Amino acid sequence: MSLRIFKFLFVCNRFNLFTCMIKRSVIFLNGVICKSKIINYYLSKKSFLVCVDGAGNYLKRLNIIPDIVIGDLDSITATNLNYFKKRRVEILRITEQETTDFEKSLMYLKAHNCSDVTVIGAMSNRTDHTLNNFSVMKRYSDKMNIKMVDDKFEVSFVTKSINFKTVPGETVSFIGFPVARGVTTSGLEFPLNNEDLEFGIREGTLNRATSRKIAINFTSGDLLIFKEHHLS
Amino acid sequence: MSLRIFKFLFVCNRFNLFTCMIKRSVIFLNGVICKSKIINYYLSKKSFLVCVDGAGNYLKRLNIIPDIVIGDLDSITATNLNYFKKRRVEILRITEQETTDFEKSLMYLKAHNCSDVTVIGAMSNRTDHTLNNFSVMKRYSDKMNIKMVDDKFEVSFVTKSINFKTVPGETVSFIGFPVARGVTTSGLEFPLNNEDLEFGIREGTLNRATSRKIAINFTSGDLLIFKEHHLS
Repeated sequence: MSLRIFKFLFVCNRFNLFTCMIKRSVIFLNGVICKSKIINYYLSKKSFLVCVDGAGNYLKRLNIIPDIVIGDLDSITATNLNYFKKRRVEILRITEQETTDFEKSLMYLKAHNCSDVTVIGAMSNRTDHTLNNFSVMKRYSDKMNIKMVDDKFEVSFVTKSINFKTVPGETVSFIGFPVARGVTTSGLEFPLNNEDLEFGIREGTLNRATSRKIAINFTSGDLLIFKEHHLS
Repeated sequence: MSLRIFKFLFVCNRFNLFTCMIKRSVIFLNGVICKSKIINYYLSKKSFLVCVDGAGNYLKRLNIIPDIVIGDLDSITATNLNYFKKRRVEILRITEQETTDFEKSLMYLKAHNCSDVTVIGAMSNRTDHTLNNFSVMKRYSDKMNIKMVDDKFEVSFVTKSINFKTVPGETVSFIGFPVARGVTTSGLEFPLNNEDLEFGIREGTLNRATSRKIAINFTSGDLLIFKEHHLS
């Protein structure tokens, strides 16, 4: 067990973290909010809802009651925090500053053996925040399936070859983060054939689907993939 | 000369690229536009103004006449392009799709031996575009001084230790991109002492100045630094 996880469990040991397993979760962060139809799609999946600090201010406006509010709680208003308390929402205040509130929520879910996480509000006009969130997502991507969702894309790190469905004409962006070697694709307007993608060297973004099925194969490294999401 | 540069020069060989040297330039991209006071600050520096394709649509609204419009020109409206043509703005249409319009503009400036580039509109709500722009910026950062500017920050890649002035309390974010080793800082709330920052491993973002002077020293690698900018 890493020192980071140990400290986290020590901080919140008054909560019995191991009483249940969370299969699927949606984390709400305090960035750009998705359109209602996207939020509703993920709410319909009966997920465990984690509200990270200031995201509570927009969840209140949207009449969404989370299962837990987590973070150092310096951004959610006292009024909104009381609103959730009165509705018996669990409040987990963790003041340590070694991790961001987003990471605290992932540590909580990892401790509950959560396998599938969707993150809403991870991207914002503060690019340093967005990149910080991407870096944290990468750190936990080998432990659980994490995707960040905005109005256009599902964004995730992948470490092995993937296939997925799309619609011809739609954007598919991917970028070696920092590097992916031996990338070969099918179903894309600008195909790659055993080529390396490396941040600052060569990008693979701004490609387009020419088929209903995309295959992205690579031999090593990490790809950050942006897929247009299809709500059904 | 790389194949990429050679192709570029071949494509635009009807322009005599080597007749003048550009000391300082501002590139306008088609992302989020900065506040007027920030744009005006950089315009006051008598820079060569490069309008990249669709950015022409907002430059027209702002009554800014660039020195050149460059790109594949699939985003600027025909009306706005004619508006600039009538004002004798140079129009450089390059249709090759191997590089983005942002990279085309950097190649143009590099061919003119430009040493100092400020980029406005590089960040947007399309995170794949933003990351693509960061990757291109990194590729050219050893050839010219490039900074991207939004309403809060100047963002740049640095490969060697730096000092800069700030104001106590302000945010200073930096992130190993992908890695910076042996990072030691002074003047920050959360100091680092000979530590490694690596994307997906450890972040250095969301720090704060405690002094009027910040020093960030590191032994190897690349840091992406976000400094709050002070307009004087």
